[in-house]
Amino acid sequence: MYNQIKQEAYEANMQLPKLGLVLFTFGNVSVVDRERKVFAIKPSGVSYDLLKPEDMVIVDFEANVVEGKLRPSSDTKTHAVLYKEWEEIGAIVHTHSTYGTAWAQSNRAIPIYGTTHADHLTKDIPCAPPMSDEMIAGNYEYQTGYQIVDYFDQSQIDYREVEMVLVGNHAPFCWGKDGHKAVYNAMVLEYVAKMALLSEQINPDINRMKDSLIKKHYERKHGKESYYGQ
Amino acid sequence: MYNQIKQEAYEANMQLPKLGLVLFTFGNVSVVDRERKVFAIKPSGVSYDLLKPEDMVIVDFEANVVEGKLRPSSDTKTHAVLYKEWEEIGAIVHTHSTYGTAWAQSNRAIPIYGTTHADHLTKDIPCAPPMSDEMIAGNYEYQTGYQIVDYFDQSQIDYREVEMVLVGNHAPFCWGKDGHKAVYNAMVLEYVAKMALLSEQINPDINRMKDSLIKKHYERKHGKESYYGQ
Amino acid sequence: MYNQIKQEAYEANMQLPKLGLVLFTFGNVSVVDRERKVFAIKPSGVSYDLLKPEDMVIVDFEANVVEGKLRPSSDTKTHAVLYKEWEEIGAIVHTHSTYGTAWAQSNRAIPIYGTTHADHLTKDIPCAPPMSDEMIAGNYEYQTGYQIVDYFDQSQIDYREVEMVLVGNHAPFCWGKDGHKAVYNAMVLEYVAKMALLSEQINPDINRMKDSLIKKHYERKHGKESYYGQ
Amino acid sequence: MYNQIKQEAYEANMQLPKLGLVLFTFGNVSVVDRERKVFAIKPSGVSYDLLKPEDMVIVDFEANVVEGKLRPSSDTKTHAVLYKEWEEIGAIVHTHSTYGTAWAQSNRAIPIYGTTHADHLTKDIPCAPPMSDEMIAGNYEYQTGYQIVDYFDQSQIDYREVEMVLVGNHAPFCWGKDGHKAVYNAMVLEYVAKMALLSEQINPDINRMKDSLIKKHYERKHGKESYYGQ
Repeated sequence: MYNQIKQEAYEANMQLPKLGLVLFTFGNVSVVDRERKVFAIKPSGVSYDLLKPEDMVIVDFEANVVEGKLRPSSDTKTHAVLYKEWEEIGAIVHTHSTYGTAWAQSNRAIPIYGTTHADHLTKDIPCAPPMSDEMIAGNYEYQTGYQIVDYFDQSQIDYREVEMVLVGNHAPFCWGKDGHKAVYNAMVLEYVAKMALLSEQINPDINRMKDSLIKKHYERKHGKESYYGQ
Repeated sequence: MYNQIKQEAYEANMQLPKLGLVLFTFGNVSVVDRERKVFAIKPSGVSYDLLKPEDMVIVDFEANVVEGKLRPSSDTKTHAVLYKEWEEIGAIVHTHSTYGTAWAQSNRAIPIYGTTHADHLTKDIPCAPPMSDEMIAGNYEYQTGYQIVDYFDQSQIDYREVEMVLVGNHAPFCWGKDGHKAVYNAMVLEYVAKMALLSEQINPDINRMKDSLIKKHYERKHGKESYYGQ
Repeated sequence: MYNQIKQEAYEANMQLPKLGLVLFTFGNVSVVDRERKVFAIKPSGVSYDLLKPEDMVIVDFEANVVEGKLRPSSDTKTHAVLYKEWEEIGAIVHTHSTYGTAWAQSNRAIPIYGTTHADHLTKDIPCAPPMSDEMIAGNYEYQTGYQIVDYFDQSQIDYREVEMVLVGNHAPFCWGKDGHKAVYNAMVLEYVAKMALLSEQINPDINRMKDSLIKKHYERKHGKESYYGQ
Repeated sequence: MYNQIKQEAYEANMQLPKLGLVLFTFGNVSVVDRERKVFAIKPSGVSYDLLKPEDMVIVDFEANVVEGKLRPSSDTKTHAVLYKEWEEIGAIVHTHSTYGTAWAQSNRAIPIYGTTHADHLTKDIPCAPPMSDEMIAGNYEYQTGYQIVDYFDQSQIDYREVEMVLVGNHAPFCWGKDGHKAVYNAMVLEYVAKMALLSEQINPDINRMKDSLIKKHYERKHGKESYYGQ
């Protein structure tokens, strides 16, 4: 019944070590089944070397386990909130990838400095601030989801255009229409994060790229008359 | 009829992931046939894992597809302009390699700090500034080619001596007599770009190397009595 | 008689090159047998390519060799002191891993900037200052052990909560309940060390993460109601 | 007749790409036969993928080719001078390794910040300044050898204690009793060079490690009662 999302979640999870995005078990991917309102997510603490498709845990949007013998990832509630609130996303990735996490620890959004960034989104990669002490002390992983959603609302960022976020002092979350695209976005974030730091080191007086160029690069990939692909 | 340039373009493209110069499909190589006035270029959006020699697309110098079922790289017009304007180049490489792209994003030419650089060119690696808003809004990839050519003209740089350029806020383009040499240049640029940043970090008061040394290193490799090779 | 700790020490040592934590022979792991009051440690100067389980040297807490044909690691006395003084540790790792060693050379503790750090310990990773000239000139490796133990005592740090330390101008030492956990800690230290430097480069005005968040991340992994694992 | 040094030079050269110390052909190793007053060196411009033991070129201390069909490395004269002037060295390595070369480009000696450095030499890794214009314009590679030898003489550095040097604006040269040790030194230099830069970035007010610690680490490895090896 849930074999398809289990398989897709398994394959997307296995991409993380292959792309160098996880150390040990510091990451997880989930894939949603919108009809059944459940998602398949990596079990908690299982090494990528030993992971199997049937290990994926099926969870509903209230973070209740629907099927599976293993405990779901400790970030499951964050995933559940994002699926519940954002109806058009198909998969979510959380990593502690080196450069993305360093920007998150610095509590800075990643400025848009070049076309590699603009080919994917037209804004800085946002950084949601750390939560209030009350939110942290409460239902922490659940509140992390709402911290992201609320920050996008307040900042008038559309999650369909900006498929990635840094959570301040924590690490990145990315999403997309399916597991493959969500992992792709996690890798793009890491690559852009590294080049943004290097660019600031090369030129401390660096400016964001100009709007006309941002717009052009985004439209050639995502606009109505898109033609991009290299 | 085009098998030779297809094969050479295929092999040169496959060198990019091997050398760590591309993430996903963020790069492309083309190889020209000067007699037939066409070039073979990577198709758009095809993963390097799946690429085959017969996938290469044959394009003329006006960027019209002459042969091939797939869409050519989105940077095809830039390649076409360079082949048309610079009659002695045999192949072109475009990458978003990490350090080269970081310098491009910083809108800085890469200063000549050591003999690794001087063994290949006697000048800073130039950085063409971002285009005007009008050029960007127009035929963008075509204008990118002319932005490079015009910048070399204005700066009195000879494309036969300086086989690489950064396009501001974008990324590097390199070329050479054949696919192998163009990819070699792309790797040299990346290596020199990384060491130049590190050198500035080690010594913020760094100066360019002295002219006598630049001249010596270039001449021993490229001069009439060249003898270099390690 | 000592086969179990020899095998465990061998396997833990072999993890070091696999994780990129050692160059040549710049590292060693030991595993203790608390009942017999001895530990198995890597022999001195033996390449990881050639290492075998039976090469491990058995040493008591006064650093006397109990069994083994090869000379034990030159850091053996440091290991012996830590086992003698800290009764609950089961294994020790010493490396010269790149980023951990760079922090040690800088004589700085690694500040707690994010949840990757807080998932493992709630304090900065401590840096014991270099020893006095007298201690260095004397029984150096033995004194290194006491420099660590004394620094933890003076700073009121519990070795059961903080399973890692930098020795100033030298390099990291880590420990844990068994060989696997000690090596895991050595890798976490290296990863956190790299991200801490990057974070300071991204934001020179960076602050430590807030206490409520430190506490939450630590408790969800180590507290009485721990539920963490990703 | 020269098979032994050819084989040893071949094996040492092949270690360079394995250790990540060379890009393309940017490096070379030679091994000397003191009795016959000749050395075996890598041929010029031959890719490491294709290199064979019989390709090594036999050269005397005046840099004349004694045996071999291929042209010897363009750095041959530098090697010849060092063998002629320094009678106790058995092998020489030249690389453009990333961090070592960045320090050379910066014209800075690498300060001694930690025990990884002190385990190998008790001084900063010296940086010979770039040559005068006259020396550069003349017999360049030959003069490079004398620039190194003269700098050691003037600075009262003993080549038997300090087995490595940076040539300003160029790159490192290392040596040792045999090919294996010379390559080992080239790797130690690169590792120490990287950590020294990182250490300065972590702590801009960093000081050299104290003399008592330098002395201890050197003596435990190289002193009369050496016992080091890890």
